[in-house]
Amino acid sequence: MLDEEHTDMNGQHFGDTLIERIRRLGHPLCVGLDPHLERIPPLFRRGSMGPDDPQTVEAVGAFLTAVLHRLPGRVAVVKPQSAFFEQMGWRGVQLLDRICRDARSLGLLVILDAKRGDIGSTAAAYARAYLDRDAPFAADALTVNPYLGPDSVVPFLSSAGNAGRGVFVLVRTSNPGAAAFQEGGGERPLWRRVADSLADAVEADRGQRTGWSGVGAVVGAEHVDIARTLRELLPAAPFLVPGFGAQGGGARDALAGFVPGPAGPEGGIVNSSRGVLFPDAGSTDDAGCWERAIDDGLARTIDALVRVMG
Amino acid sequence: MLDEEHTDMNGQHFGDTLIERIRRLGHPLCVGLDPHLERIPPLFRRGSMGPDDPQTVEAVGAFLTAVLHRLPGRVAVVKPQSAFFEQMGWRGVQLLDRICRDARSLGLLVILDAKRGDIGSTAAAYARAYLDRDAPFAADALTVNPYLGPDSVVPFLSSAGNAGRGVFVLVRTSNPGAAAFQEGGGERPLWRRVADSLADAVEADRGQRTGWSGVGAVVGAEHVDIARTLRELLPAAPFLVPGFGAQGGGARDALAGFVPGPAGPEGGIVNSSRGVLFPDAGSTDDAGCWERAIDDGLARTIDALVRVMG
Repeated sequence: MLDEEHTDMNGQHFGDTLIERIRRLGHPLCVGLDPHLERIPPLFRRGSMGPDDPQTVEAVGAFLTAVLHRLPGRVAVVKPQSAFFEQMGWRGVQLLDRICRDARSLGLLVILDAKRGDIGSTAAAYARAYLDRDAPFAADALTVNPYLGPDSVVPFLSSAGNAGRGVFVLVRTSNPGAAAFQEGGGERPLWRRVADSLADAVEADRGQRTGWSGVGAVVGAEHVDIARTLRELLPAAPFLVPGFGAQGGGARDALAGFVPGPAGPEGGIVNSSRGVLFPDAGSTDDAGCWERAIDDGLARTIDALVRVMG
Repeated sequence: MLDEEHTDMNGQHFGDTLIERIRRLGHPLCVGLDPHLERIPPLFRRGSMGPDDPQTVEAVGAFLTAVLHRLPGRVAVVKPQSAFFEQMGWRGVQLLDRICRDARSLGLLVILDAKRGDIGSTAAAYARAYLDRDAPFAADALTVNPYLGPDSVVPFLSSAGNAGRGVFVLVRTSNPGAAAFQEGGGERPLWRRVADSLADAVEADRGQRTGWSGVGAVVGAEHVDIARTLRELLPAAPFLVPGFGAQGGGARDALAGFVPGPAGPEGGIVNSSRGVLFPDAGSTDDAGCWERAIDDGLARTIDALVRVMG
């Protein structure tokens, strides 16, 4: 069963798979795998925990593997953050590769948050790395940065489309400085132009079973009006809403771009990292306590979402 | 001598080192290390040359090592393109790490072209990976994508500043679709807002010996007027001008943002990848021919720049 999950990509469609799994679980929570080295629980720490110490990679690997095993049946999607692996050098990237494979073997969908972006043959090389059918990194979807222009996104869209994989393009983020570049420009701020440039690709990749596309958008949780406008512009795009929980976004705001579906509001995923991974450092110094803390953190985060989905 | 080059980062300043080495050599050519798998010369090919074959990584490593050994004394800077390493999976990233170290051991400056960008602690993790004093990847400078906002660039600037390393922020690229997002917005298009957001950091990081900053900008070669405007906005920023040669930019246009210096026009680096790496596939099937082809390609490319520097 697990291997089938891993290999039947040819018949897969990311939008369909994503939304069907979320419907089945009843919530859109995605668990962000952001291994902050200084937050790895005592139970798993080894050696200096410095980024260049090979023992650190082992410690992070043991921690993330233990986390992954708490997730199947509870969440549909995980989002490894490439930066936290790259900070450990190539051994960290080797671990990222393993974690992606392990997650998919456990039946979890993997959105690799690497925010890659470049032009022409370079963008195609990134797409080959993460999205092609035989891509060395086993991701179901990749986050993409569109700064270089609509043509820079095309190689990612074609590789993803061919392999039944997904792409989440940065559109509007909710960090304090986002507006300086993503807003402005009068009636058509950058976020709207990026959205417009994706509209055809979103429509062209609608899944046959759910109508949701494999082409999605990263949309910060705090800008409710923008999320609603983006939903109008990109009706079939799954939204990746980052920063739920620790980064302060409320559940109701996070779901602003969601629409009624057969099993409740739907429209993408809401990511939480710290609230699940590092629920309470103090209570996680033995395995039993740690597992309870993770399970409780997960349950609390899911509850917060389910409560407003009513 | 070589080890000193590699370890004396503490006293280094990227802007100073870059410009001093360019002055010494008399030209601003940077060699892009973009290992297109299908273009690796027959001499070096092994196994299937598929991206997932470990033999491919060996072949690319042998090819790039041979290229690197042709460069010292001829060029000051190389620019490995991360995408072409990532497409080979974690083993490709391990090779990237080795190539960066080898290049620096040979006395070459390394600008890692990875166009990273993210917010908060994630941006800090990328900066730790590539720019901190003890960063696992041995780069002298990193390319950065500013889409997420000025605050997303800050962690890169602080890590680079602390370590005497450099940052090249994407400002205006010259791919056909660049204008759709980088232009527009009336009097202050995105590229100008990005430049304005960098102005203080560029000034604050001016080197004591040359006056050039460690904070630079990626500026496409085709837009001469924009390059001149950017030079006014960011007088001390080294420009990274991509796409010279194979991608069609002419030498005179590539130097549009340069200004008079003690040893001729200066103001950054001009990158060429294919014209140097893959000069003429047909003539490179034995080692002697291949070395001559590389040397000739390099000489031709340097000549084209020197000719217009008058």
